[in-house]
Amino acid sequence: MAGETTITVIGNLTDDPELRFTPSGAAVAKFRVASTPRTLDRASGEWKDGEPLFLQCNVWRQVAENVAESLHRGARVIVSGRLRQRSYETREGEKRTVMELEVDEIGPSLRYATAKVQKMSRSGGGGGSGGGFGSGGGGNSGAPSQGGYADDPWATAAPVGGPGGGNNFDEEPPF
Amino acid sequence: MAGETTITVIGNLTDDPELRFTPSGAAVAKFRVASTPRTLDRASGEWKDGEPLFLQCNVWRQVAENVAESLHRGARVIVSGRLRQRSYETREGEKRTVMELEVDEIGPSLRYATAKVQKMSRSGGGGGSGGGFGSGGGGNSGAPSQGGYADDPWATAAPVGGPGGGNNFDEEPPF
Amino acid sequence: MAGETTITVIGNLTDDPELRFTPSGAAVAKFRVASTPRTLDRASGEWKDGEPLFLQCNVWRQVAENVAESLHRGARVIVSGRLRQRSYETREGEKRTVMELEVDEIGPSLRYATAKVQKMSRSGGGGGSGGGFGSGGGGNSGAPSQGGYADDPWATAAPVGGPGGGNNFDEEPPF
Amino acid sequence: MAGETTITVIGNLTDDPELRFTPSGAAVAKFRVASTPRTLDRASGEWKDGEPLFLQCNVWRQVAENVAESLHRGARVIVSGRLRQRSYETREGEKRTVMELEVDEIGPSLRYATAKVQKMSRSGGGGGSGGGFGSGGGGNSGAPSQGGYADDPWATAAPVGGPGGGNNFDEEPPF
Repeated sequence: MAGETTITVIGNLTDDPELRFTPSGAAVAKFRVASTPRTLDRASGEWKDGEPLFLQCNVWRQVAENVAESLHRGARVIVSGRLRQRSYETREGEKRTVMELEVDEIGPSLRYATAKVQKMSRSGGGGGSGGGFGSGGGGNSGAPSQGGYADDPWATAAPVGGPGGGNNFDEEPPF
Repeated sequence: MAGETTITVIGNLTDDPELRFTPSGAAVAKFRVASTPRTLDRASGEWKDGEPLFLQCNVWRQVAENVAESLHRGARVIVSGRLRQRSYETREGEKRTVMELEVDEIGPSLRYATAKVQKMSRSGGGGGSGGGFGSGGGGNSGAPSQGGYADDPWATAAPVGGPGGGNNFDEEPPF
Repeated sequence: MAGETTITVIGNLTDDPELRFTPSGAAVAKFRVASTPRTLDRASGEWKDGEPLFLQCNVWRQVAENVAESLHRGARVIVSGRLRQRSYETREGEKRTVMELEVDEIGPSLRYATAKVQKMSRSGGGGGSGGGFGSGGGGNSGAPSQGGYADDPWATAAPVGGPGGGNNFDEEPPF
Repeated sequence: MAGETTITVIGNLTDDPELRFTPSGAAVAKFRVASTPRTLDRASGEWKDGEPLFLQCNVWRQVAENVAESLHRGARVIVSGRLRQRSYETREGEKRTVMELEVDEIGPSLRYATAKVQKMSRSGGGGGSGGGFGSGGGGNSGAPSQGGYADDPWATAAPVGGPGGGNNFDEEPPF
């Protein structure tokens, strides 16, 4: 793709990310980010919250699984992606348009938080084990239960492990 | 500030972040990010690495401490900030100019990694304990040794805890 | 303002900009930009148009007047601004939300066009005359009829010339 | 290219753009943009100029010719492109690195100026005539003397008209 409108948004998740799988087995996570600007009130010299911007975000494949595992409601994030418009019809037959962000890169902000980062092993589909990097030398007993979607009712319909390959970024999210 | 040139960079730390303190006690971390673009070779249909972009980054105060604790050499990060130019003279009296990024927001990328995020308590200067958010309900025994710069030789010259207040973002980094 | 979501969009005006004035006399121009990404079809090696992104834009004061005079339907532009959300109720009482771009800076793209630039004199409200800069030495007889809103029916309600000053960027556009 | 670091810069040309041609005949224009941020001094309530950021820019092919014709020293521009690093050796054998912007899109800012935009005819190499768009319906006698590099001493070494085709964006600028 060329000529796409890229954007970086900094804000907080309004809910836990929702993880699903396409029929072909690709993971996709959906979440909403609220970004609140601040205005300096010149009279009082104080900052006041402005009108928040809410942006619906989609993220695909392994990153989707990493997001679902690492980020939760309220988390402050940095999100970088491409702004897209999607048209749909309501049940009443009205045409609506929504803006969405196709996420290319996302991470938890370190402004008010620390993070224990654990690199994926690139070998398996499931990943999750492997020598922790960025873990400060400490042992990782009780490592994050990455993978483990075995018990996920969604997963039965769309088995984990086979993202199905291909650059199917244009596939519609199953939400 | 208005009219600054903002930029989002995605890349990998070339080294562990270097944490120091200004005489007034403000923490500042310095690190370098290497961002490597990829070109699609139309003939072979394969992606090839392009020339990397190296960008020196400065981050201040609590975020600096969070960065130093959370990110390490090789970590893939998303960094958002303002591009600046700094002029200096070499020992030989030559004038040089470097570009730097004054970091506003930074986080570990979840593209190839997961992260256990731990929100700072906003009360104390040291912080670091407090109810973990995003930690999935698990106990945090062996919590990140945030603070703990007691043994840091730099810290004696510039004691932690008193960032000294003020918007001294324009202070030169002590590197 | 701090923490706003900034964005740069490159696209084409879907119509001529619509110029109006607030009751306090501030000019505001409204227009829509269509930005069409292109995908490289690997099989054929050809670029194909993707789904366009439509973005409603507002621009204020003198820039609004400059836009209305300089840009027309179909013009390719570069627009830089802040992404905002605005909620309103339809006549049926339904709540809707639209994304808009509060334009900070805009110009005609030189990708497929040339431009004769004429700097405003900063003195008067009307401006427009003054030594042309960027005009390559040619005389400017038949200079752009800037100002000249005298015959504009809108202008009677909100006289030109006194944008009223003040940082009333938060004023609602009168559309 | 994917994963490049894109950036939008708003500033003023420090000089007239310098137009050259590669041996293969591709036009390239080089210019420098100075972007000056402003700080709000809380005490006085006034804005003060900050340290300017200077960024060297390269632009290629037809856009280069359009830039050379349309923009001049002092012009305020919006530039969007990819940040790159280029290493070279000084005559003394020292290795230096410079940041440059590979321009994707550029236009004159309408903040303090108006512009008469004239769309290129896409047919010929020379272009420049053709039905003016954005010219408000007036005839365009005395159209901008686009092309006309016939008298340019550089042009003899690298004849205009045959950009040589190919995506030789990676070619080094002949400066």
